[in-house]
Amino acid sequence: MNNPKIKVGVLGFGGLGQAAAKILHAKSQMCLVAVADQKGYAYNPEGLDPDTLIPVYHQQGSNGYLPKYGVLSNNSIVHLISQAQVDGYFLALPNLPNTFMADVTRQFISVGWQGVLVDALKRTSAVEQLLELQEDLSKAGITYLTGCGATPGLLTAAAAIAAQSFAEIHHVKITFGVGIANWEAYRATIREDIAHLPQFDVDKAKAMTDEEVEEFLDKTNGILTLENMEHADDIMLELAEICDRHQVTVGGIVDTRNPKKPISTNVQVTGRTFEGRISTHTFTLGDETSMAANVCGTAFGYLKAGIKLHQRNLNGLFTAAEVMPSFVR
Amino acid sequence: MNNPKIKVGVLGFGGLGQAAAKILHAKSQMCLVAVADQKGYAYNPEGLDPDTLIPVYHQQGSNGYLPKYGVLSNNSIVHLISQAQVDGYFLALPNLPNTFMADVTRQFISVGWQGVLVDALKRTSAVEQLLELQEDLSKAGITYLTGCGATPGLLTAAAAIAAQSFAEIHHVKITFGVGIANWEAYRATIREDIAHLPQFDVDKAKAMTDEEVEEFLDKTNGILTLENMEHADDIMLELAEICDRHQVTVGGIVDTRNPKKPISTNVQVTGRTFEGRISTHTFTLGDETSMAANVCGTAFGYLKAGIKLHQRNLNGLFTAAEVMPSFVR
Repeated sequence: MNNPKIKVGVLGFGGLGQAAAKILHAKSQMCLVAVADQKGYAYNPEGLDPDTLIPVYHQQGSNGYLPKYGVLSNNSIVHLISQAQVDGYFLALPNLPNTFMADVTRQFISVGWQGVLVDALKRTSAVEQLLELQEDLSKAGITYLTGCGATPGLLTAAAAIAAQSFAEIHHVKITFGVGIANWEAYRATIREDIAHLPQFDVDKAKAMTDEEVEEFLDKTNGILTLENMEHADDIMLELAEICDRHQVTVGGIVDTRNPKKPISTNVQVTGRTFEGRISTHTFTLGDETSMAANVCGTAFGYLKAGIKLHQRNLNGLFTAAEVMPSFVR
Repeated sequence: MNNPKIKVGVLGFGGLGQAAAKILHAKSQMCLVAVADQKGYAYNPEGLDPDTLIPVYHQQGSNGYLPKYGVLSNNSIVHLISQAQVDGYFLALPNLPNTFMADVTRQFISVGWQGVLVDALKRTSAVEQLLELQEDLSKAGITYLTGCGATPGLLTAAAAIAAQSFAEIHHVKITFGVGIANWEAYRATIREDIAHLPQFDVDKAKAMTDEEVEEFLDKTNGILTLENMEHADDIMLELAEICDRHQVTVGGIVDTRNPKKPISTNVQVTGRTFEGRISTHTFTLGDETSMAANVCGTAFGYLKAGIKLHQRNLNGLFTAAEVMPSFVR
């Protein structure tokens, strides 16, 4: 098995992008050759090292400052993807605004790039935008795998497997647990979570002062309970014909005052077997696995699976619920 | 979505074959058109009804006695597959002797049949025999999915999903619990289980009379405790590059006198994340789901996935660890 390494690019270099670079560094089957952030990019066909990328990014604010291989650019994604030899990109970009991932995808199509794209999108409405690009992606020769993070992604795929035992699915319930020692280390994330609460929205949460957040968390003992979140697990399981989207619910508990997860992240699939019995399969993630491990590991598993699809000329849009991720060594 | 129904055949009409017929009866996307047992077969392109098939089989001992559509034959499989229009077969045959499934596969190849085959094989050595037919299956235009029952199958696929969070897999541990009210409904399956016990082998178990099985089960209070079983989950996860086969262990407890499971069936995947943390993901099946639901449901999910592969000209041998099963409505 002397296959050449899969040449991987990572777009976005926040928490997930940096974790992705670290993960790739230990892989023998994949090699990180390209990274991009808002202000620049870096490309080395021989490979990029997270131990130089990450400090440069932290100190100078862009991969464009990387000695020898970095280029500063206000149009970093287009510049990078137009010239780099890359088999597949992990789009580790924050989807802000909610149309951003679809816009980036249109850029890939318009420069005539061919290969594999993988995202870890969360919102149903963002995946719906990509569905509209199905035919364009096919024609362009791009194999795009969407919703390939933890939820949607790992847990959605587990739900698709679990569904097999049943004649009819009644409910897919995804529950995640997050524990952080101190909310101030995750100000933006906590505000995003607060935005999901019934009496809030994104603008309202964003406008809160730190004191107001503190006060709010005091009332809940530091616990945020999130219910009925807009997560693309629903549309992915509907597209896979497993159930209707309204039968899928996603929620979680965030403890902002304790690094221990308040609840283990899990997905429960409840259905009726052909004999008429109602039962529930449960897939539970080990508490020691981080969001970065569950998101990025899964994304690269789908990237490898996507490469195989692409080699067989299977282009267009796929979701994590319809393709088995490959394990990447 | 006005696709014609997938025309399905079921070879073998023991406990699994009968459950398969019942499951198919409720599907809108699949239709049972062909069944075969040792003494005969039945074929109706308009569909076969389990409510007539099963009583005839119980009363007269073969599907060959089915009024109008039944044919008695000492070479039932070859006779059936040579003439019936079938998109995919579920091979619900007991693999006794251990070369039987491979022999049947060679029959499919030799009559020039094209389509999808799915098995629920258990033993590593049986899957190894099929691996030798990889090229012949490809040339013949057959898409063969092996190990598509519960274990291997449902649990192996869940393990392949669970592996995504980890940089390295240490152990995949499958533990099953089976409870059946009466062993006589699953004579072949129970003999296969007995064959796994230290003091037995396949020939010895096959040669046992019903009375001898009964006597043996009396000594163990109807309980079979199985450890380090030869299960193809190991080779399937090795082929998927997830871990070495010796890192996969399969064991379980079978209660032949109580439909309640003595233990919840589960798979645990332990590994190391990229940050160096050791953790375990666990996938647990609901106790109310029967072996029949978990095996046959999964087999038809892979059969549907196999049809899609076949339509795209992807022939040859695949395992349940590398293909995502589709949900069958």
